[in-house]
Amino acid sequence: MATITGPIDVSALRARLDRASTAAEQAGVDALLISPGSDLRYLIGAGGDSFERLTCLALPVGGTPTLVVPKLEQPGYAGIPTDELGVEVVTWVDGEDPYALVKAAVKGDRTAVADMMPALHTIKLGNAIGGKQSLAGPIIRELRMRKDASEIDALRKAGQAIDRVHARMGEFLRVGRTEREVAKDIAAAIVEEGHTFADFVIVGSGPNGASPHHRDSDRVIEAGEVVVIDIGGPVAEGYNSDSTRTYVMGEPKHDDVWDTYAVLQAAQKAAVEAVKPGVTCEQIDAVARTVIADAGFGEFFVHRTGHGIGLDVHEEPYIVSGNALPLEAGMAFSVEPGIYLPGRWGARIEDIVVATENGVESFNNRPHELVVL
Amino acid sequence: MATITGPIDVSALRARLDRASTAAEQAGVDALLISPGSDLRYLIGAGGDSFERLTCLALPVGGTPTLVVPKLEQPGYAGIPTDELGVEVVTWVDGEDPYALVKAAVKGDRTAVADMMPALHTIKLGNAIGGKQSLAGPIIRELRMRKDASEIDALRKAGQAIDRVHARMGEFLRVGRTEREVAKDIAAAIVEEGHTFADFVIVGSGPNGASPHHRDSDRVIEAGEVVVIDIGGPVAEGYNSDSTRTYVMGEPKHDDVWDTYAVLQAAQKAAVEAVKPGVTCEQIDAVARTVIADAGFGEFFVHRTGHGIGLDVHEEPYIVSGNALPLEAGMAFSVEPGIYLPGRWGARIEDIVVATENGVESFNNRPHELVVL
Repeated sequence: MATITGPIDVSALRARLDRASTAAEQAGVDALLISPGSDLRYLIGAGGDSFERLTCLALPVGGTPTLVVPKLEQPGYAGIPTDELGVEVVTWVDGEDPYALVKAAVKGDRTAVADMMPALHTIKLGNAIGGKQSLAGPIIRELRMRKDASEIDALRKAGQAIDRVHARMGEFLRVGRTEREVAKDIAAAIVEEGHTFADFVIVGSGPNGASPHHRDSDRVIEAGEVVVIDIGGPVAEGYNSDSTRTYVMGEPKHDDVWDTYAVLQAAQKAAVEAVKPGVTCEQIDAVARTVIADAGFGEFFVHRTGHGIGLDVHEEPYIVSGNALPLEAGMAFSVEPGIYLPGRWGARIEDIVVATENGVESFNNRPHELVVL
Repeated sequence: MATITGPIDVSALRARLDRASTAAEQAGVDALLISPGSDLRYLIGAGGDSFERLTCLALPVGGTPTLVVPKLEQPGYAGIPTDELGVEVVTWVDGEDPYALVKAAVKGDRTAVADMMPALHTIKLGNAIGGKQSLAGPIIRELRMRKDASEIDALRKAGQAIDRVHARMGEFLRVGRTEREVAKDIAAAIVEEGHTFADFVIVGSGPNGASPHHRDSDRVIEAGEVVVIDIGGPVAEGYNSDSTRTYVMGEPKHDDVWDTYAVLQAAQKAAVEAVKPGVTCEQIDAVARTVIADAGFGEFFVHRTGHGIGLDVHEEPYIVSGNALPLEAGMAFSVEPGIYLPGRWGARIEDIVVATENGVESFNNRPHELVVL
């Protein structure tokens, strides 16, 4: 189905469609072409889910927004008030050419396609329409990365829900269990505490914690091991949680754990406290990185400090070297430095925060210390 | 992680890499550029899972296959014998330009990108490399749609697993329950019967059965209603099941159910029996469609007759009007006509079949009659 999430606020969606059209015009683009995913959900309230059959919202500057959709997917959009949104719906059936329908809905040939559109459609739309194809991401992100009050409410709700899961970690994370057993229980708790589903559960014990994107495994968790728990999922409104805490099973078996973790905790705290309007994304990254590098662990912090979050778990703004974007009130993102000691252990601390007029609000508020279980 | 599934057969993967390179050369392409997904899993045994950070297997004709991968994702490929496969691994960290690394790995500027590559990377690779960009799908599909013996074994195993779930449907599907309650139990059974996870569960009761891509809802199932159950997921080897049966809760409340269903059953049976090497995909579609149209229900069969299946639930060959591809032994696909009466009820019957040297083998073998529960 078209994954309609949360209540439909017609006036908010109309305003987003209008702003997207204006932003497209300012970017020198004739039309935005939006395929299923979070951009579509942001603009019309339904994310769609077709892959090889083209679904595409064509948003021509100065023209009528047109949703080209396979006829058999149309019932999934029954909850979308397309008439009130001023969106025309054009259906097609197997054997027809949907790319020609998109071409007919746009004027001009300077199109910007959704970042997540599969090449299957990107290239066929390019061939059908001709002209210059660019990315819609830089246009849409100008809207999406500035969260309004209802979006911030949804992110706060998601943060509270995942905090409740971390608060229960002692129920799940015990010596003698496998990472997979722990992950399965956490996934159930993520749903119990108010998420629509568990989008990801990382249980990285011992050396697995030194692999930042490890998920889980059949590895049995032993006494004295450090365990990284990175978890999240969407709430009903479609907005996501994402929070990491690091645990240790009794007294650490490695004697460098406490001191190293203290460096990480200081880095994460400093980066969060640096957040306020006007500070750039790369400055926040540098704050965390400097603390870690100054303590001699620079080479073991192998990823950016954070990512924006909203309808996607990862979206703009990215908190990374090279991103000179100044923060504004309403920008929400993760602050999640880590230290990864290959073959031994790793640790990460992650909060979702939002820049406010005065500084920063954190949506995650569990203790930041290494938690002994 | 990189979603490594099943045992790694080095010689089989080497042969696939070689055949992909040969097919690229024959297609007049200088390099294939493969992003995470089933194409990558098919070629190197790991599907990857990065989105906004580029992971890309560059497969240059006459050159060294090169996997460009974010450094923090690299541990996920630890199980892949890249040396034995002759694949060079090049890592990058946040702030570096991964598109330049791909450009350096290829010669020439005629590139073919994986169908599922996000526009985010498709367009940036196009800008970095220049030249002509086309789709890798038509090249890779020539390999993927001809299943070898181990792939057919995996599809057969998946078919048997989903048949066991349909055999248990009386445990789950009962009057007075909601579609969502039924779907939740079916999802658990899909895992219990040998799948890695439940990829999709459609429970379409009464009028919801007339929407082919309905998932589930809070609708309570009533006596006399027809219910479409379309379910599937991958087994450990990564290959998928996908089977639909239609049930009725006691005596049907509509008096046209038995006669209409008989038309559908005859159509599905005729289409399966028509499968053999040399018959085209569109001929199989026409067989099912003609039976249904001749009985006066043509306008109520609103989708193609089937889709290929393997590492993806939907892949080539598509059984659809306009596809003149002749079937060959080893091609596996669904045969799933449906009749959908808007606002009233719907029915669909779906088997996964494979063309054999002599005709056809069906991987799904539950009774095709309307099942009275």
